Amino acid sequence: MLLTRKIEFSASHTCWNPALSEAENQAAYGADANRHGHGHNYSLEVTLEGEPDAVTGMVVDLKAVKAILEREVMEPMDHRHLNLEVPPFDRVVPTTENLAVEIWRRLEGQFGAGPAKLRAVRLYETEDLFVEYEGR
Amino acid sequence: MLLTRKIEFSASHTCWNPALSEAENQAAYGADANRHGHGHNYSLEVTLEGEPDAVTGMVVDLKAVKAILEREVMEPMDHRHLNLEVPPFDRVVPTTENLAVEIWRRLEGQFGAGPAKLRAVRLYETEDLFVEYEGR
Amino acid sequence: MLLTRKIEFSASHTCWNPALSEAENQAAYGADANRHGHGHNYSLEVTLEGEPDAVTGMVVDLKAVKAILEREVMEPMDHRHLNLEVPPFDRVVPTTENLAVEIWRRLEGQFGAGPAKLRAVRLYETEDLFVEYEGR
Amino acid sequence: MLLTRKIEFSASHTCWNPALSEAENQAAYGADANRHGHGHNYSLEVTLEGEPDAVTGMVVDLKAVKAILEREVMEPMDHRHLNLEVPPFDRVVPTTENLAVEIWRRLEGQFGAGPAKLRAVRLYETEDLFVEYEGR
Amino acid sequence: MLLTRKIEFSASHTCWNPALSEAENQAAYGADANRHGHGHNYSLEVTLEGEPDAVTGMVVDLKAVKAILEREVMEPMDHRHLNLEVPPFDRVVPTTENLAVEIWRRLEGQFGAGPAKLRAVRLYETEDLFVEYEGR
Amino acid sequence: MLLTRKIEFSASHTCWNPALSEAENQAAYGADANRHGHGHNYSLEVTLEGEPDAVTGMVVDLKAVKAILEREVMEPMDHRHLNLEVPPFDRVVPTTENLAVEIWRRLEGQFGAGPAKLRAVRLYETEDLFVEYEGR
Repeated sequence: MLLTRKIEFSASHTCWNPALSEAENQAAYGADANRHGHGHNYSLEVTLEGEPDAVTGMVVDLKAVKAILEREVMEPMDHRHLNLEVPPFDRVVPTTENLAVEIWRRLEGQFGAGPAKLRAVRLYETEDLFVEYEGR
Repeated sequence: MLLTRKIEFSASHTCWNPALSEAENQAAYGADANRHGHGHNYSLEVTLEGEPDAVTGMVVDLKAVKAILEREVMEPMDHRHLNLEVPPFDRVVPTTENLAVEIWRRLEGQFGAGPAKLRAVRLYETEDLFVEYEGR
Repeated sequence: MLLTRKIEFSASHTCWNPALSEAENQAAYGADANRHGHGHNYSLEVTLEGEPDAVTGMVVDLKAVKAILEREVMEPMDHRHLNLEVPPFDRVVPTTENLAVEIWRRLEGQFGAGPAKLRAVRLYETEDLFVEYEGR
Repeated sequence: MLLTRKIEFSASHTCWNPALSEAENQAAYGADANRHGHGHNYSLEVTLEGEPDAVTGMVVDLKAVKAILEREVMEPMDHRHLNLEVPPFDRVVPTTENLAVEIWRRLEGQFGAGPAKLRAVRLYETEDLFVEYEGR
Repeated sequence: MLLTRKIEFSASHTCWNPALSEAENQAAYGADANRHGHGHNYSLEVTLEGEPDAVTGMVVDLKAVKAILEREVMEPMDHRHLNLEVPPFDRVVPTTENLAVEIWRRLEGQFGAGPAKLRAVRLYETEDLFVEYEGR
Repeated sequence: MLLTRKIEFSASHTCWNPALSEAENQAAYGADANRHGHGHNYSLEVTLEGEPDAVTGMVVDLKAVKAILEREVMEPMDHRHLNLEVPPFDRVVPTTENLAVEIWRRLEGQFGAGPAKLRAVRLYETEDLFVEYEGR
């Protein structure tokens, strides 16, 4: 069974790769390459997989999930400028794709020993664009 | 091909396991353990799998799907108190997980002989929490 | 200028007036008259009116608004059975209309001395039904 | 990794198969069989699969995706009557299922040589009914 | 107090005024002028104004509202081509504006004698475009 | 009659008033005071008031509205850092309130001579917080 918790956070980012020229950055990222950055209300769906516990009927303790998401995502990323405040985005371009990979990396170990395993993260940059990552 | 129909129903529930102590129930369910119950506008997505019929171009007769969902979900569960009126929730804790399993159990046999098979049920308790069950 | 904050809470209710007969209750409330109750994810929009402060550029301190809504709405009503746990709904039928009036009554005095005044409460019982109340 | 782009288009259609009798069309399609047609705001989610590029951190050039969707879906289908203006729906019944298959067919070749491959199309006829097609 | 009920219907229309030239129609309506028509999932919010009844706590009998909307809007307009099947749109251009006026005209008399009066109709053609009409 | 067009734009901002101390800024703006800034997908509803034209049935030419919103809002604000790139936010704190006032100021003159007048701007910072401004 899959259980999904959704949270939202607001952050700034700019998509600019110093290994590329100005023109190459513009070609790759368009308006996202604006060096001053811009921002989004990111919406994150974290999907866990497990069996409902025979006694509680729950796949996972939702209070524990909330604490993990608070510590690993909300605290470091909400109301932040990703490039300036959230490693590794000082050196990795914070595209939606790379941000999903980083969130997976932060969360994966947190659920390793529990009854539910991390199955997927789905990250919406806007309502019209989202990525889904399952660790590979 | 997958076809999904979404319906909504309003129900009350309380999450309380008599095999657990008051403290254990509070620890497991938090505010959900309030004995008086509380309620949700549940949103249910029922996903069927099949091939479009060569003549009609339809995977399934939507009027038949509506009749099944009406009989198996809406009639017994909408505007009900799950613990008090909807077996097996007189003895099974109506967590979102257990409710999805019960809905699967009620629907599975209904689509067995038809051109489309039940593939998944996705149940939203709120916009921010949902489970998905595929029968195992 | 109007500023609106939206919150959500889950509650049970039943619409049943002891001054009416069984048949009259059924006629007035339909499925809502089920004595065991049912529930909703209520969505509440609280609208305040005021001028942006010349220094902060804000109509109101949002942290104070959050504290008021937490104390006056979330704490007493979220995860509750309105008829059984939230006066005056032990004697007043908790229709969406009456619930909006009660929320207005609880909030009105809280904003009386502040820079922003309560202008309206809009309460959604479902996505398809909502009421708006401005204190008269 | 999966990346999904969502677009919307407005179109008319009627579900009527000339190989069926009037009664059979009514039985199969109900109100959808109205010969004058009716319409929808279709919502289309196009899902691509690929690896983020090591330099750009992007699975695919979103400007190229937009151009493909503009040319293959928006230009031929938006603000059109599917049966009258969009082959093969002059001879194929434009059910949601058949429309998803046709959109897949139009898009599949467009992504064949690129770094990202077409993985799925999900087509919403309304918020309550959608199909998903993965090419088989 | 205001009470709003929301319904949805699917219809086709074309915006074309025979009193205008082809070029003038294109200038006025753009893609909407396609003679074959296109369609939308219209979303309609009907707002009534009244006082909650002292006994029932309700502004209006929702079952009666549903019956009126079914008879005056859903039955004549849902799954229809407005220009071809719904007078006066055989001679009046069915812009969102004119459609809202016609819906107001059909509904106004229905609520005249009741405890609640028609206050406004809000009609969404898409999520991004809506009109609101209050009878003048 | 009111007609509303909705657009979305992504921007960064920080709420920090140099006339206030660090502690005062934290007290006023909380996490919004992070000097590196953060961002939002702003949703803007622009409401115009006018009569449907007797010939076209339209309150306003939507293509003209789109061009105005593109020039006055999207081009200067989308994918921008409001404090660094969008006057007067180099010296005015870009709270949601002040941003709505600035958008009103930019739009008001654009509709002065036309058949439709600017009636209101409603600006959502998130789904749960929005302001509405009518020019006073």
